[in-house]
Amino acid sequence: MIDKKDIKNLKKIVGEENVKDDPAHLIAYSYDATKTRYKPEAVVFPKNEQDVSEILKYCNERGIVITPRGAGSGFTGGALPVKGGIVLSLEKHMNKILEIDMENMVARVQPGVINKDLQREVEKVGLFYPPDPASQEYSTIGGNVSENAGGMRAAKYGITKDYVMALRAVLPNGDIIRAGKKTIKDVAGYNIAGILVGSEGTLAVITEITLKLISKPKLTKTAMGVFGSVKEAMNAVYKSLAGGANPVAMEFLDNLSIRAVEEKFHKGLPVDAGAILISDIDGNVEEEIDYQLSLLEKFFKKNGCREFKIAKDEKEAADIWFARRNASQSITIYGSKKINEDVTVPRSMLPKYLEEVDRISKKYGVKIPCFGHTGDGNVHTNVMVDGSDPKEVEKGYKAIEEIFKVTIELGGTLSGEHGIGISKAPFMKMAFSDKEIELFKRIKHAFDPNNILNPGKMGLD
Amino acid sequence: MIDKKDIKNLKKIVGEENVKDDPAHLIAYSYDATKTRYKPEAVVFPKNEQDVSEILKYCNERGIVITPRGAGSGFTGGALPVKGGIVLSLEKHMNKILEIDMENMVARVQPGVINKDLQREVEKVGLFYPPDPASQEYSTIGGNVSENAGGMRAAKYGITKDYVMALRAVLPNGDIIRAGKKTIKDVAGYNIAGILVGSEGTLAVITEITLKLISKPKLTKTAMGVFGSVKEAMNAVYKSLAGGANPVAMEFLDNLSIRAVEEKFHKGLPVDAGAILISDIDGNVEEEIDYQLSLLEKFFKKNGCREFKIAKDEKEAADIWFARRNASQSITIYGSKKINEDVTVPRSMLPKYLEEVDRISKKYGVKIPCFGHTGDGNVHTNVMVDGSDPKEVEKGYKAIEEIFKVTIELGGTLSGEHGIGISKAPFMKMAFSDKEIELFKRIKHAFDPNNILNPGKMGLD
Repeated sequence: MIDKKDIKNLKKIVGEENVKDDPAHLIAYSYDATKTRYKPEAVVFPKNEQDVSEILKYCNERGIVITPRGAGSGFTGGALPVKGGIVLSLEKHMNKILEIDMENMVARVQPGVINKDLQREVEKVGLFYPPDPASQEYSTIGGNVSENAGGMRAAKYGITKDYVMALRAVLPNGDIIRAGKKTIKDVAGYNIAGILVGSEGTLAVITEITLKLISKPKLTKTAMGVFGSVKEAMNAVYKSLAGGANPVAMEFLDNLSIRAVEEKFHKGLPVDAGAILISDIDGNVEEEIDYQLSLLEKFFKKNGCREFKIAKDEKEAADIWFARRNASQSITIYGSKKINEDVTVPRSMLPKYLEEVDRISKKYGVKIPCFGHTGDGNVHTNVMVDGSDPKEVEKGYKAIEEIFKVTIELGGTLSGEHGIGISKAPFMKMAFSDKEIELFKRIKHAFDPNNILNPGKMGLD
Repeated sequence: MIDKKDIKNLKKIVGEENVKDDPAHLIAYSYDATKTRYKPEAVVFPKNEQDVSEILKYCNERGIVITPRGAGSGFTGGALPVKGGIVLSLEKHMNKILEIDMENMVARVQPGVINKDLQREVEKVGLFYPPDPASQEYSTIGGNVSENAGGMRAAKYGITKDYVMALRAVLPNGDIIRAGKKTIKDVAGYNIAGILVGSEGTLAVITEITLKLISKPKLTKTAMGVFGSVKEAMNAVYKSLAGGANPVAMEFLDNLSIRAVEEKFHKGLPVDAGAILISDIDGNVEEEIDYQLSLLEKFFKKNGCREFKIAKDEKEAADIWFARRNASQSITIYGSKKINEDVTVPRSMLPKYLEEVDRISKKYGVKIPCFGHTGDGNVHTNVMVDGSDPKEVEKGYKAIEEIFKVTIELGGTLSGEHGIGISKAPFMKMAFSDKEIELFKRIKHAFDPNNILNPGKMGLD
């Protein structure tokens, strides 16, 4: 429990105006995209790394728990102060792009920088930061690093961890550490940056991030394939990639998702199709784009694609992407409550995975529209139920549990993008052995012996 | 100290024939590429993961130290049993390619598989494993993972850590753990695979590795640029990459290296040149290759390239590569002892770095030929001295120490490819703060509380 003296001492560190414990602030910082609420006892806005260090040192000595927070847009409760204490909000002051180093093609940013702001800035100088989570317009790079965010471009360009070259961070005892370099190669000491990425704010507070940038490809084209069945589409996904295609994105919508978008927007979508695949191809010369498109066309048609369309211009490309971009909001026609999961399976398991989802849907009598990033095996699987009916909701969660089981059996992971947080913590034992969880706990202890950093997350307590 | 009972018990685990403590074996397993020698007390050849688990459990309880070993080709002593105990040799039985999964484009291998054997096998089916350390013909994937090996293709394709998707490993207490998945996206639990890569065998014994593969590009071309000075060449390196070029490799030789190769092989190399840059470009269509070559030509010529040559065929390409491939053996004309380092700096610091190397060379009166992977800032810096003259050798080591200092000041790393081992352990305090080293030790303790795994390495003791 934080007392008045703590508030006074925290104000001494960061200044009167940067510690808030009025009801309005405590409510504003009590939720994230999970819509679950946990009120903190205070919200603290550090001005810089030194502030973070002093706050952590003080809290560590006093046993006050800390939940670091970026934009609070996470889907698994990573930024929720489930054990009270303080929320350490990094988006207010620590939100600067410190450097775009064009010579070495890296950007150095503070954790509170918004993903899309960074993308825009680097693209102005011909560079490119590929990770593009759906939350890119509001989520922060610090949050992206902490949850190892993915996005649509992962099929070709990988995810956040593939772009983190170096970090500065503060350990729970207040120690400031640096990890990594502005170099592709670095084999000195343990890969601390590697373990901090995706650690959901439980090991250290990240205060500066050095990101790899690449050259912005000059050309992009969009293609779409319409398939009779989900199975054919899923075969087309992994066979085209294994056959040499290297699309930026390879997104899909199943029949339920197609019908939902059509019902809402009347775009003339093929409502009888089993699935649509949408793909972006990029490159620097027309011939490379044509080569890639020809591979897609070949493997799509070999696997039952009944219509293959290449967008002629940006408008047509936007039309093709419209269905995918509006899938998430459209499927709410199937139920007032959406339990959405981001499970990921090896690509060759996609046909089997979607067959199992269909079976589970029938077993529990719930609709489960699916869409998402099939190019990397990441399927957004949405169990739709009537939120006002507790029995329906219970059925929904039972279906989800079975979906997790199937995912693990197929060699997949509980989370491709959103992390574990509190939402998936109950399922950690399904995915990891006791010995593996023991190792996680020992690592947690090595960084945070007093368990003050984001406790109650990842099933480690 | 290992006693007779230990030998007997180890033989019970792995079989009589897989434990050796005769003098011939102890000598054979006492050295690596550093040429330093430390004799183990026994050499054990596990047949499988279960053996590894039982051996580690036994040794952990008995306090017997273990040094895991692949091919013993490391340059920093990672595989040397500096504290005695047993060498755990993984190259004899645990050397199988378990699976080349073409559908998901991954390979699953045991640690003892030779890098180049894997490359050859995957290329047979149109796939590609890019990491190509100079030791690729004999070094093992297990060693590559443990030292996070790089290579020539890192400029475009990255290094070992960029290809490790999942691992199986045995902890010092015998626990078998899995980390990672066959999926690009996975955000469940801490990134254990990430911290095991490059941990130099100090945290766990890796028993299985799942590697990402990519499609093999259809075309490759080679180009060479001759420059008046090293500085011009180094400017050309980082400016061409920042300008959009994406070469597979961007290798360089300085004047001393060029002259050494010419003296030894009489190939008609430009002995008056300050530096040569050699670059491979790959892709799937001619136009992409031409586009890349045109970028190289433009940026090379803008930065003082006096001759730009594109190889017309494989023979010409091999001729161009000849100088680079024979640089390492040729520079021995400058001294019987070569102290070779693999420091790496941000690319834009290459001109300054090589200016400093020149200054240090003059200061100590030693020749320091340089060549290597400038495309990723990794310069093989070779201090050549008369090995029979202790004063010369001392001067050489003083020069090396100053080179490390300069590297760190320029934002670089002690090691781009070879790791710390014992060779660079004395310099860890130059590169890391006490607090950072403390964190390394706490992580080591979390995995290996009894310090039985590869003790005496990385400056952690």
